Amino acid sequence: MRILATNDDGVHAPGLWALVRALKPLGEVIVSAPDRDRSGIGSALTLRGPIRAAKLLSPVDGVNAHAIDGTPGDAVLIGINELAGGPVDLVVSGINPGNNGGEEIRLSGTVGAALHAHLNGIPALAVSTHTAEDADADLVQTVLRAMAAGMVSIGAGTPLFLNLNFPVIDPASCARHQHEAIPAPTAGVLLTNPFPGPVFDNIAYGRRDGRLSFWNARHLALKRADVLPADSDLFALVNGYVSVTSLDDKLSRASPSAIVDTVVRMAAEAISTPG
Amino acid sequence: MRILATNDDGVHAPGLWALVRALKPLGEVIVSAPDRDRSGIGSALTLRGPIRAAKLLSPVDGVNAHAIDGTPGDAVLIGINELAGGPVDLVVSGINPGNNGGEEIRLSGTVGAALHAHLNGIPALAVSTHTAEDADADLVQTVLRAMAAGMVSIGAGTPLFLNLNFPVIDPASCARHQHEAIPAPTAGVLLTNPFPGPVFDNIAYGRRDGRLSFWNARHLALKRADVLPADSDLFALVNGYVSVTSLDDKLSRASPSAIVDTVVRMAAEAISTPG
Amino acid sequence: MRILATNDDGVHAPGLWALVRALKPLGEVIVSAPDRDRSGIGSALTLRGPIRAAKLLSPVDGVNAHAIDGTPGDAVLIGINELAGGPVDLVVSGINPGNNGGEEIRLSGTVGAALHAHLNGIPALAVSTHTAEDADADLVQTVLRAMAAGMVSIGAGTPLFLNLNFPVIDPASCARHQHEAIPAPTAGVLLTNPFPGPVFDNIAYGRRDGRLSFWNARHLALKRADVLPADSDLFALVNGYVSVTSLDDKLSRASPSAIVDTVVRMAAEAISTPG
Amino acid sequence: MRILATNDDGVHAPGLWALVRALKPLGEVIVSAPDRDRSGIGSALTLRGPIRAAKLLSPVDGVNAHAIDGTPGDAVLIGINELAGGPVDLVVSGINPGNNGGEEIRLSGTVGAALHAHLNGIPALAVSTHTAEDADADLVQTVLRAMAAGMVSIGAGTPLFLNLNFPVIDPASCARHQHEAIPAPTAGVLLTNPFPGPVFDNIAYGRRDGRLSFWNARHLALKRADVLPADSDLFALVNGYVSVTSLDDKLSRASPSAIVDTVVRMAAEAISTPG
Repeated sequence: MRILATNDDGVHAPGLWALVRALKPLGEVIVSAPDRDRSGIGSALTLRGPIRAAKLLSPVDGVNAHAIDGTPGDAVLIGINELAGGPVDLVVSGINPGNNGGEEIRLSGTVGAALHAHLNGIPALAVSTHTAEDADADLVQTVLRAMAAGMVSIGAGTPLFLNLNFPVIDPASCARHQHEAIPAPTAGVLLTNPFPGPVFDNIAYGRRDGRLSFWNARHLALKRADVLPADSDLFALVNGYVSVTSLDDKLSRASPSAIVDTVVRMAAEAISTPG
Repeated sequence: MRILATNDDGVHAPGLWALVRALKPLGEVIVSAPDRDRSGIGSALTLRGPIRAAKLLSPVDGVNAHAIDGTPGDAVLIGINELAGGPVDLVVSGINPGNNGGEEIRLSGTVGAALHAHLNGIPALAVSTHTAEDADADLVQTVLRAMAAGMVSIGAGTPLFLNLNFPVIDPASCARHQHEAIPAPTAGVLLTNPFPGPVFDNIAYGRRDGRLSFWNARHLALKRADVLPADSDLFALVNGYVSVTSLDDKLSRASPSAIVDTVVRMAAEAISTPG
Repeated sequence: MRILATNDDGVHAPGLWALVRALKPLGEVIVSAPDRDRSGIGSALTLRGPIRAAKLLSPVDGVNAHAIDGTPGDAVLIGINELAGGPVDLVVSGINPGNNGGEEIRLSGTVGAALHAHLNGIPALAVSTHTAEDADADLVQTVLRAMAAGMVSIGAGTPLFLNLNFPVIDPASCARHQHEAIPAPTAGVLLTNPFPGPVFDNIAYGRRDGRLSFWNARHLALKRADVLPADSDLFALVNGYVSVTSLDDKLSRASPSAIVDTVVRMAAEAISTPG
Repeated sequence: MRILATNDDGVHAPGLWALVRALKPLGEVIVSAPDRDRSGIGSALTLRGPIRAAKLLSPVDGVNAHAIDGTPGDAVLIGINELAGGPVDLVVSGINPGNNGGEEIRLSGTVGAALHAHLNGIPALAVSTHTAEDADADLVQTVLRAMAAGMVSIGAGTPLFLNLNFPVIDPASCARHQHEAIPAPTAGVLLTNPFPGPVFDNIAYGRRDGRLSFWNARHLALKRADVLPADSDLFALVNGYVSVTSLDDKLSRASPSAIVDTVVRMAAEAISTPG
């Protein structure tokens, strides 16, 4: 099994290497990721080239890794077409520190990278946790591995496009990031739909420095649970569930699928099975 | 009437200033556009700031213009929130040299800029021609002005989101750009849907230089007319029609709307009316 | 006479167009400048291409202007070799808002652009004022025009490389920029040497945001006059003189030259001659 | 002993990690280097922030490494002031694949990084080989380690600024890079001066693509030996010598120094001593 790992936070990001550690037991993992943080870039591609790839001395033995001077989408396209050395069975993007849900998935490079795999007929999984520290949690590693295995074994030939979000695993990490703590133990796995509205309460540009210089003042403010539809990704997260959303090429929810149901069940079983 | 003009080719692009000339008779036009070519960037925002704005010595008298060190989406958000000096009635993005249709509108910064206006409740119009030279054509200028006027007068309060594409106006310009000539005189205006597939035949990254350096080899290759649904944007363009697509916040076609029908009729009348 | 105007603040900067206005009476002025602020870039070149040039709709009639997606040095090399349409007699870089003197001229893209003209055998003049507002002052425009005319008429064939700095012209502008006011009326023109030390008192990177994010905390703090050698550029500026430094290709002072003496005299005469 | 390693080819470049391997036996090595290739950037700094630092999972155990979203000079200043965790005894920049000599050292980010260490009172060593493959050669590793040890032990308190260039070690690698082969076994170590002229024969920008797009056509063409002064860095390299140039803050040759003589002797002894 050959899996391409990518992200939008840059090839240095610890979340990407937590992803590599989760996936390595499953087969060959190759890395093709942007050379720097490209958060907010969505599914953009670099239409005016060139795009350079630099081979990394990988911090994980046996992993072929490249830093790409382009977007997450470029990293996926170059990875599957030029660097992988053979057909790629699955593209996994993440682990993003910060959930990607609701309408804002359109801005997410984590989701945008996975979209390009999907558009090229390859199963794709985007993965986000609530805080950076959660990426190494046993539960995250276990669920991620179970879903990746399921997508390749059951979903082969079907370019599933799943957006996987974990709720708060370690409430203490919320305090460190000045997030509102959501002290829910993981309650299970829900198949959800993207919340049909913005996650962020404010989108504003504030002036800085006396110059004409602006700063996006967007801050995460999870909606209160009582205004969230019970089938939405945000409802799941606020209530302590792992959220799995099945997407189509518009980033809308995909048609129902027995394969997706099975993959979700495998994730749920991974949670309930000790270690 | 206050109109914000933007684009994804950069504030220098002649197409942006052709847009300004078309709109100036309607009221106050302000420009907020990226400082360089950001084609392919879609609806990305710069989440890690800062974003700088530089006031231009505008080449058109009386136009307040800024170059933004960010994406087309940033340019729209900063423009409407910080630079416009009052409520913006309409955002127009373009004139892009090259049509934006089919699935690839997700990559288009021209469309991505307009999307951010729409998401902020402001009527938005994305405009593309087949070649750069067509931006100054009388027909383009006239139709664009009629639609902009209609969107503000009739559509005020409704954040219409329209994607306007012109077919080949001057076949000679196709030869200069090595496009296939499509020798159709403008046949009228059609309300269309986005073609549900890729416009480009090939998406490939070719190696260059002996280095690990890649180049997006994407080339426009308009589909043959006989495989195109008759209600699609691409069918309209291949057959010489001006195409108007009404979009929602997923870049899917919006629900039918009497206001859109009226605006399309105004565009059609502008074509049939001399001068 | 054909003059190439460039800068390091980007093609939008008002100082560049103040320069164009000063030079236009002398002959053909063409503009080739970076598309954005490249302050601090020194004499860097883009060795890995490509470098794009976008033709501007120039805000000044009859001026052929391009925005370059590269460094000031790239803008000069592309300007003189590709865009000028004939031999360039003089390259003038500026008008930089903020003096460029002392050791820090190595960081200055204003000076770095002029260096590349010098290295290519073309007379080169770097121009800086104390504040942005001074660029349009009569004295600045007059001295600049006199020196440019002198460099071409007398210095033709000799690639003079002069660094021209103006002292405070309008003390009120200092207050607006939170600079220390130096209330000296212009006292004359001095031929100076670069002050052999840093102009800035502190070079520090401060942390920001809780992230690993740094900001250069460099602030201008002109040295006290009593520690400055009387032949230095900084002494001249602090005491209200226009400073002209003749540089070599190491940005050290050039050997004495009768031509430079004449050009300095022409600048001095321009000051003393009414209007 | 605490050594900061940096380069201008980006933190991924194999040459940087060959440098780390050479220096690790001497003490603590920390890495602070640009996140991407910044060749040609010289001694530029990022004056408009912010500059982000991303902690790497280092491919070499026990090495604290960061990728900097800035220039080599920024990487040095942030490294010594913010990341090192204590006083830095030596900054080493490289190993650059391609010699840095003659006038072009002004463009070299390898040399520019070392310059900023020197300006801050820290001994600095820039290191370049003729081809990338030579960075791991025993001779390179041995000489580099000997000089670094000498600069700290003998030169402590004296901010030496040395530019170290290796001649061709493995002639076969020249063929792979389409360089002219210079089949000289290493002849010894010479203390040299920068060749007072350009190394490159041509500096040209060629048009590409039909667009206004340019490419720096600069190619290395080592001068013929008979036109090179016998005390120049280029003469040394063409004749198979390791070249050590002692520089000042103008990138001119520094005044003679007994300490430099000793360090050069230590390098020479490292060559002649087996293993």
